[in-house]
Parts: sequence; structure tokens; C-alpha cells
Amino acid sequence: MKQPVRVTVTGAAGQICYSLLFRIASGEMLGNDQPVILNLLEITPALKVCEAVAMELNDCAFPLVKDIVVTDDPAVAFKDSQIGLMVGAKPRGPGMERKDLIADNGKIFSSLGKVINEVADKNIKICVVGNPANTNAFILAANAPSINQRNITALTRLDHNRALYQLAEKSGSDIAEIKKMIIWGNHSVTQVPDIAFATVAGDAAADKVDAAWAKDDFMPTVAKRGAAVIAARGSSSAASAANAVLDHMRDWCLGSESGDWVSMAVPSDGSYGVEKGLIYSYPVVCKDGDYEIVQGLEVSDFIKGKMDESEQELKEEREAVADLF
Amino acid sequence: MKQPVRVTVTGAAGQICYSLLFRIASGEMLGNDQPVILNLLEITPALKVCEAVAMELNDCAFPLVKDIVVTDDPAVAFKDSQIGLMVGAKPRGPGMERKDLIADNGKIFSSLGKVINEVADKNIKICVVGNPANTNAFILAANAPSINQRNITALTRLDHNRALYQLAEKSGSDIAEIKKMIIWGNHSVTQVPDIAFATVAGDAAADKVDAAWAKDDFMPTVAKRGAAVIAARGSSSAASAANAVLDHMRDWCLGSESGDWVSMAVPSDGSYGVEKGLIYSYPVVCKDGDYEIVQGLEVSDFIKGKMDESEQELKEEREAVADLF
Repeated sequence: MKQPVRVTVTGAAGQICYSLLFRIASGEMLGNDQPVILNLLEITPALKVCEAVAMELNDCAFPLVKDIVVTDDPAVAFKDSQIGLMVGAKPRGPGMERKDLIADNGKIFSSLGKVINEVADKNIKICVVGNPANTNAFILAANAPSINQRNITALTRLDHNRALYQLAEKSGSDIAEIKKMIIWGNHSVTQVPDIAFATVAGDAAADKVDAAWAKDDFMPTVAKRGAAVIAARGSSSAASAANAVLDHMRDWCLGSESGDWVSMAVPSDGSYGVEKGLIYSYPVVCKDGDYEIVQGLEVSDFIKGKMDESEQELKEEREAVADLF
Repeated sequence: MKQPVRVTVTGAAGQICYSLLFRIASGEMLGNDQPVILNLLEITPALKVCEAVAMELNDCAFPLVKDIVVTDDPAVAFKDSQIGLMVGAKPRGPGMERKDLIADNGKIFSSLGKVINEVADKNIKICVVGNPANTNAFILAANAPSINQRNITALTRLDHNRALYQLAEKSGSDIAEIKKMIIWGNHSVTQVPDIAFATVAGDAAADKVDAAWAKDDFMPTVAKRGAAVIAARGSSSAASAANAVLDHMRDWCLGSESGDWVSMAVPSDGSYGVEKGLIYSYPVVCKDGDYEIVQGLEVSDFIKGKMDESEQELKEEREAVADLF
């Protein structure tokens, strides 16, 4: 039997985690042969509900779950942690400006970064889900200099999966036939869903759908899908977000599918002219517990313009929290 | 590629299904190589939320999901259906007697039974989750005479899994080391959790825990665990119930673990003196898409007395809905 992996989940009493934790526990993230220890972090007022989640996890009799720790102390939650799923964040309240949201969450993530820097495994793999995800990851990284910086990432897999579905639907094809989708940039409305390199059953996607659809329909539909789900559901995406977290971390740990790539927001190494250090979504290939940014794609001027706008937004978000790093 | 299996889920916009559907879609119920078509049935006022669930399922880009049908028409939802997960039921309202609850749900399940009788696959495998689950399954069966009656079952796997956890916790052992747990009877507080034949790492459980604990602590704790979760969580078990549905149906379809058994409420064939036809929870072994009640266990007088009480309750529940079959 393998040694258990210690997985820390923040915002553990919330809706995304209620969809996420049971699937981690059943082996969907790290495999059916990988035991886990689940560290559930919540703010103090939510501890009681968090304990109830732990009760239900126990009531599933998952053979892979070796221990469950419920705590409101980040130093306990992240002690020796090898995987950090940063789901918890302050949501945007009524009358709140985006700038205020960034500042408030910036404080949370700078504080968590400092704790992770002290107590976590130095190679902890982190996926930030709480918004603004890319900038929260940037702040966390800046406050955790002893942690392997490559491993501090943010979630754009939900956007990637939404894009796969939209293209499958439009082209009348099976999801499994679509490869090489890309989400560039920030996990926000400036994100850049790009089908320029996508294939459908081996053929170029661009030959299956017209360019006007890709630009005027596909791109805004994917970028604004979160709002559409809220309008239909009355609350924000939870199970689909949780599913994307599983996809993100499973592929990172166990490898992405051969002949395909996935989208992850990772610290830029300057690829495609993006400023080094920004947490930017790229197409990546995962292998051996690591990822590599796909290189050498010839990006059109139209897409590059959109990529620049998303980069500019990330710089402005960084500016808004400059006091935190 | 295998032909898709058509799975119908009732109460599809509710909390249990929100935990259940995404795990079915990912392959956790029928296997990673088994495509599915998901038929989501809801009452008309909940259709909008149900559509939002379908949006999120699409946004997961699950390769196994070949189609999603959202409907408020049972005849559409159950047409050619091969698996029916009967999650939806009227919950108990304030001031409502259990008898009223049984009568109201009886009407729902007799009506669904008639539709299933007409339109579903004759070998549809049914798991009733909505309470009173055993009696709802009984009414459904009585109204669906053309359906393979063996295949109309109710969920006691959540009780079984809760029992596994309690024994693991008490004996300080790993969940995976515990075999041959039993839940006898009705999925209600009269259920009979029984460790008489259970083993812990190959040894008799009775040698690991004392008899007083089994009788005075274990049995009531398992039987009343649902209420304990409600008290802690503020709402009833959802993710753990969904997990038990997956376990129930996965084992039934793909086989239970060799050397172990599971608990399912199935139509009694008279085994252990229970009246034939009552939907009663037994230890069963699953193989080749079917189940067999474990025979020849020597049940103590104490347990037999409890089993009789649970059987008596099922007869009284049946009496309360005698006009429906």
C-alpha cells in the first residue's frame, strides 16, 4: 500500500468542497490505489458544518481515507501538506467593487502563503480556485518564497471544459473526439478561449465551425458561462468547478492524455511574451507529476491582442494588491 | 465502445442528485468504459434548476455522457430505462404524521410504478432512495407487475456503510479490513445493524468489541445516524446517501467484493422467515448483474426478535397504503 498523500482543502464546508471531497475520497483525483489524509480548513463559524461533512465522509466508508482533520488553524491544516486546494475565498458582496474584492482576498491569500511557506511540504502542489484565482495565486506565491514556485497554480480547467462542450455541441461531435483546446490568460471575462489549434476527430476545428461563430459566440459564451449558470441555478457553479479541480490535479499528478493538452494557469516563464511571474493560463502537457507549457504555437494577431488584454488585467489586479508582497 | 446505458434519476434537482449525477457521469457507478444517457426527472417547478444541473454536467465534458434529457414527464424519463434511481420523494413537513408521509409518497410511487410498467426496460434495475424507501419500493413493485420483480430494491447501503465506519472506529481498524456487516429489515429506526458475522482483519468482530457496545451503542448509533447528521449539518445527508446509491448499484451491476457481502433491501423470498414479497434488507452477494441473499446464517434470538419488529413495521406501513395495490 502506498503512503497516504496529505491533501488540504480550504473553504471545506462550502458548496464546491461538498462536491469535491467525496470524489477525492473515492480516488478520482489521485487514483484508486492512493490513500489520502484529508485536512479540512474552515473559518471558525463554519466548523460545525465542516464536522458534519467529516461525518458524512466517514459514513461513506471510503477505504482510501486514512484520516480526516477538521480545523480553523491554517498551520495545522497545511502541516506537511502535499496538495493544497484553495477553494475558500471571500465572495463579492452587494455594492462591493472588484477592487475591494481583490484587496480582501489578497489579505487572505498573503496570510495563507506565509503559513504554507513555514509548514507545508516544499513541493506542495497548489491549485487556487477562489477568485480572483490568478491574482490570489500570485499573492500566495509572493508570500511563500521557500515553496517550489512552479507548483503554485490557478484553475482555468473549468473554462477549458466549458469550451470543449461548446465546440462539441456546435460541431455535432463527441467530447472525446476534441483535442487541443486552449484557454489563455486570466480566469475572468478577459480569458481567451482559443480553438485555433483544436482538432475534432483529427480534423482542424476551424474547418468544422465558422470563424464568426468562434469569435462572436464561442468566446463570449465560454467567458460568461459562470454568469449563465448562476442565472439558471440561483447560485454559482459548484459541482462543475469541483470536477475541474479534480481534472486539474489528477492530470498534473498522473499525467495528461497522450496527444492532447490541458489548460492550467501557471507562473509565466515568459512564454508567448507574457511577463515572467504572472499566473497566466497556458496549454500544458503533464507528465511525471510536472507540467510543461506547450511551445511554438503560432498565435494570430487577433488572439495575441486578446492575450495582451488579459495580461494587462492581471497587471492591474497585481497593482491593486501591491502592498501585500 | 459499449452501448450507452439509460439511467433515470428522479428528484434530479435535489441535493442528493447534485452529489450523485456527477459521479455517475464520471463512471463511478457503471465503470470507466460504460457510456450513459442521463434522464433527469423533476416536478415542473424544479425544471429550471434541473436545466442548470444539466448545464453543469455539460460543463464537465464527461466523455461517457452521450445525452442528457431533462423532463417532468415520467413516461419520457423512464422510456426504455435500464436503471432507475428513485431519489425524489415528498419530505416530511411540519406537523405531518409518518402515516400521512407514507400515504403521500405511496401515491407518487404507485403512479411511477404504473408508468415504469408501461415504458421501461422489463429488466430495469431500480433502487428506491426516497423514504419510506422499502414501502415505496413495495408499492412501485405492486404497480409494475410486468417488470422483473427481483430488480425492485431499496437502499440500506448507507446504513451498511455507517455501520462499517462505527465498527472500524471502535475496533481501531481500517475500514477495508472489515467484512460481512449486515443491515436487516426496514430502512428506519427499526433497522437491525448486526455484527454477529462481521470480521475485522479475519477475526470475529465479536472478539474485538464487547457485546454491550454492539447492543447499546452501535445499533442505536447506526439507526439514528441520519438524525445526528441533520443536527450537525442543518439538512439531511446528501453526499453520503449519493455515495451509497453508487455503491448499491455498482456492486449490483459489476459484482460485490469477493469474500464479502453487502446489504440491500430486496423482495423477500421468505428467507429467514420474513414474509415473501416484503422489501426487506438482507446480506447479499452480487455477481453477473444479479444478487443472491446469503443463506444459512444462524441468527441469535436477540437479533431475530429485532428482525421481527422491523418486519412488523413493514407490514404496518403496507397496511397504511393498502388502497394503492
